Amino acid sequence: MTSTSPSSTSQPSTSPSSLQTPALDVPTAILERRAIKTFQADPIAPDLLHRLVELTIAAPSSFNLQQWRIVLVQEEAQKKALSEAAWGQPQIVQAPVTFVFVADADGWQDRAAINQIALETGAWSQQTVDYFNTAIPQFQTALGDKNREYAIKDAMIAATHLMLAAQSLGLATCPMNGWVEEQVKSVVGIADQPNLVIALLVPVGYAAEPRKNPGRLPLSATVFVDRFGQSYSD
Amino acid sequence: MTSTSPSSTSQPSTSPSSLQTPALDVPTAILERRAIKTFQADPIAPDLLHRLVELTIAAPSSFNLQQWRIVLVQEEAQKKALSEAAWGQPQIVQAPVTFVFVADADGWQDRAAINQIALETGAWSQQTVDYFNTAIPQFQTALGDKNREYAIKDAMIAATHLMLAAQSLGLATCPMNGWVEEQVKSVVGIADQPNLVIALLVPVGYAAEPRKNPGRLPLSATVFVDRFGQSYSD
Repeated sequence: MTSTSPSSTSQPSTSPSSLQTPALDVPTAILERRAIKTFQADPIAPDLLHRLVELTIAAPSSFNLQQWRIVLVQEEAQKKALSEAAWGQPQIVQAPVTFVFVADADGWQDRAAINQIALETGAWSQQTVDYFNTAIPQFQTALGDKNREYAIKDAMIAATHLMLAAQSLGLATCPMNGWVEEQVKSVVGIADQPNLVIALLVPVGYAAEPRKNPGRLPLSATVFVDRFGQSYSD
Repeated sequence: MTSTSPSSTSQPSTSPSSLQTPALDVPTAILERRAIKTFQADPIAPDLLHRLVELTIAAPSSFNLQQWRIVLVQEEAQKKALSEAAWGQPQIVQAPVTFVFVADADGWQDRAAINQIALETGAWSQQTVDYFNTAIPQFQTALGDKNREYAIKDAMIAATHLMLAAQSLGLATCPMNGWVEEQVKSVVGIADQPNLVIALLVPVGYAAEPRKNPGRLPLSATVFVDRFGQSYSD
């Protein structure tokens, strides 16, 4: 499966239609999504990729800090280098683009642009901005070495938006935890920035395989009512 | 707004219809979702709550480990105690239920039930199970003190499924990071279990307010192509 495969003929019937076909509803997208390990070589149309990016960064974040930074890896040499940083897993080379979710643990420090935009939309008053300008540094400073964790949490929310948005638009994804963080950082050019950390890698493209659902533990094992141990009934 | 408010008359026109109205598509749910701070007292119908739970735990997780543990806090005294653990924020008391997303940093150790279910669905072969039985302990042991982070990452994926599923079914949510971890653990009865950590609190219910979108940073500031710093164009 290369870029000169029959994919070039199948593309007109897949990518453009994704822009016209109604998007899947949330329950259907959730239940049909699988982690796909094999992708077609078909590219993602630029308009569709742009829509995915917009839906990804529409995710909520703590104080609207948006501490995610996303690198769209699509150049062939970069894809190969990123795959090597992920123990050679081939889906990064096969898929037309991999979203590298970086989290900026220091991203809460400069909030001038965030404040200005929220004032312009009317979502925040000057009073809210003033409150946040006191509360956010207090909260983040108190987090101490959990600043990494909190930035990663918001990046994971955005990555999940990507997975469900992609599924709803006819694309497939593969959330990946298997990589060497320092190597991934080196590939995307942030080796020397300790505040930037890696949350998740998500190849996106057209699935070239079916995948079965491995199932879930019974609700009685993972969901409780009011107190841990009081199982929720299935 | 109490449980004896007019909500009991409005409920028939809201909750049951949510089970019949088509669910929102993913892009619409993403773009219409806001973090709601004020909820109606209306309860969530048991069938609808069950559907939400099923869609939440349909989320993907690392090696399908499902290291999330979810406590549905709905008893009045428990809601009050949980609100106190979250600096008195009122949305936990107002909303009919708050999903407390717990992550089990040791949840990867006992995989017997996960393996059995995946073998029964046919998603995993015995060979896959044998491979995972070697690879997962190696991976998780190498994570060291990042076992907490990785369990939290999967809990965040599930929490995001909840937020979008709820939105698609006519409900509203409020992702909350503002709480004292040890106090939340105490409320849900896991104070003495260091492997269980708190990822996120998410009150769910019917919105009692509109909320404006505070906007997002321009894509050029947060999205890059191939290498950090090479901005993706808006």
